[in-house]
Amino acid sequence: MEKRTRQLVHKFRVRDGGKFRLKECDPGDTGGLDIDREEAQKMLAEGIERLSDLQSRLAAQDQWALLLIFQAIDAAGKDSTIRHVFSGLNPQGCQVTSFKQPSSVEIDHDFLWRTGPALPQRGQIGIFNRSYYEEVLIVRVHPEILQAEKLPAECVSKRIWKERYEDINGFEKHLRRNGTVVRKFFLHVSKKEQKKRFLERIEMPDKNWKFSMADVHERERWNDYMEAYEEMICATSTKRAPWYVVPADHKWFTHLVVAAAVAEALEEMRVRFPKVDTVQKQELAAARRKLLRT
Amino acid sequence: MEKRTRQLVHKFRVRDGGKFRLKECDPGDTGGLDIDREEAQKMLAEGIERLSDLQSRLAAQDQWALLLIFQAIDAAGKDSTIRHVFSGLNPQGCQVTSFKQPSSVEIDHDFLWRTGPALPQRGQIGIFNRSYYEEVLIVRVHPEILQAEKLPAECVSKRIWKERYEDINGFEKHLRRNGTVVRKFFLHVSKKEQKKRFLERIEMPDKNWKFSMADVHERERWNDYMEAYEEMICATSTKRAPWYVVPADHKWFTHLVVAAAVAEALEEMRVRFPKVDTVQKQELAAARRKLLRT
Repeated sequence: MEKRTRQLVHKFRVRDGGKFRLKECDPGDTGGLDIDREEAQKMLAEGIERLSDLQSRLAAQDQWALLLIFQAIDAAGKDSTIRHVFSGLNPQGCQVTSFKQPSSVEIDHDFLWRTGPALPQRGQIGIFNRSYYEEVLIVRVHPEILQAEKLPAECVSKRIWKERYEDINGFEKHLRRNGTVVRKFFLHVSKKEQKKRFLERIEMPDKNWKFSMADVHERERWNDYMEAYEEMICATSTKRAPWYVVPADHKWFTHLVVAAAVAEALEEMRVRFPKVDTVQKQELAAARRKLLRT
Repeated sequence: MEKRTRQLVHKFRVRDGGKFRLKECDPGDTGGLDIDREEAQKMLAEGIERLSDLQSRLAAQDQWALLLIFQAIDAAGKDSTIRHVFSGLNPQGCQVTSFKQPSSVEIDHDFLWRTGPALPQRGQIGIFNRSYYEEVLIVRVHPEILQAEKLPAECVSKRIWKERYEDINGFEKHLRRNGTVVRKFFLHVSKKEQKKRFLERIEMPDKNWKFSMADVHERERWNDYMEAYEEMICATSTKRAPWYVVPADHKWFTHLVVAAAVAEALEEMRVRFPKVDTVQKQELAAARRKLLRT
């Protein structure tokens, strides 16, 4: 990977959450990259090509899985990032799951339960558009949602958020031990940029479908959400499953950082095409001879 | 619960595994109960009736779930215990899952993954005939099974069994925090009694179907299995999710202990019919009046 790109990724990765402060991160940051639109597109195209090659190796090796989690406030660009960064991948090895409001059957189980069917199998990339992290975000900001989760009274105490962080960390550690690498992305948009994007959704007819009055209501809880994000990032950033806090006021930059971070994760996993040993080489030669004869 | 029964349960429960030694447990133990067949049947019938009542409360309250895990060497009586103890329950609220050899899709995920679909939902009892504990039992005794699990080399080290115990403990803690109580039963049969039961399967035509040559092969690894069971019980007995080491040379006694332990678990959960408040009482009265009028 290019040195410039590698530096970008490192700047935005939180491996040890203890000292993390969201306020110290600038949503308008472009990592000192002084490039025009065309150059940005070229860089992204290169990143995607690299990703596509790494995906082939991941699938061929068939041992590791990669789970990518995207969390953000509305209009921060989750959908657009997923579309732009992963469109070049082979869809056979890449599955996106959007987690919406839990169903009644899902509420009748522990909060990680509905994640199971969406987890990527070996050789595959799984992308979560929202995830079990909502259980310490929207559920925390809106206590009435927690109340509707049908938990026995004994299970609901002040410790519940700490317990959920702990369970999530344990779950991600378990996944890693069994061959699923986890990378988490918080797309960090400013309140000002969110307003601009909401207004666009209202004013541009072909963006109207994306607008929801509920999003504007959630905007009123901005500070509560930022507090919940910060505490979540502090509590669940680990060396094995780091958060990336990606500046999201400039979409082209968000896409570059995400593509580079995913490529780096795959490189760290040292995914490679399986080597063919002497016996297999002899078999291949025999197969070739047989094919040529008939 | 009868005092006599309560004492039985406590005797065989392992809440802190540190000092547990399997050799100190007698598979022929009958807890000092000097009763005849008829009295034993009467005691079991009473236990089942109690269970059935508690199950109704569990379902009506619809907050807690109960997960019961059965592990044992072949012919220790898992099937017969499940049949005898749980036949009196409402099948709508009770689901048994037998875990056999993992499928290829299951092997393509972490070792807890296939448990998800089998977990009981709130208000229900889930029974596992074998479980994820096989991952530290048969997989430990037969390293070739571990090798076939397609784990990246980096994930397979000497620490793997310790890591699996840790992941299992974390998983069961998470379940408990979200309203699923876990109780685990190791049916402890002697090598001599196993031989007798295998011979019965061979000699009695209507038991032939139960016999498998593979079971006799596994019998040759008796000591390895007992070591794996002991270490598993030491490492995964917790106050919240205890193991019961149930003597299994006398089936009537196994059934009594299991029935009593399950009833005690439900009693500790204080399952009860939801109380109707003043407003709901008024609604009920209004509904009654309306029904009587039409």
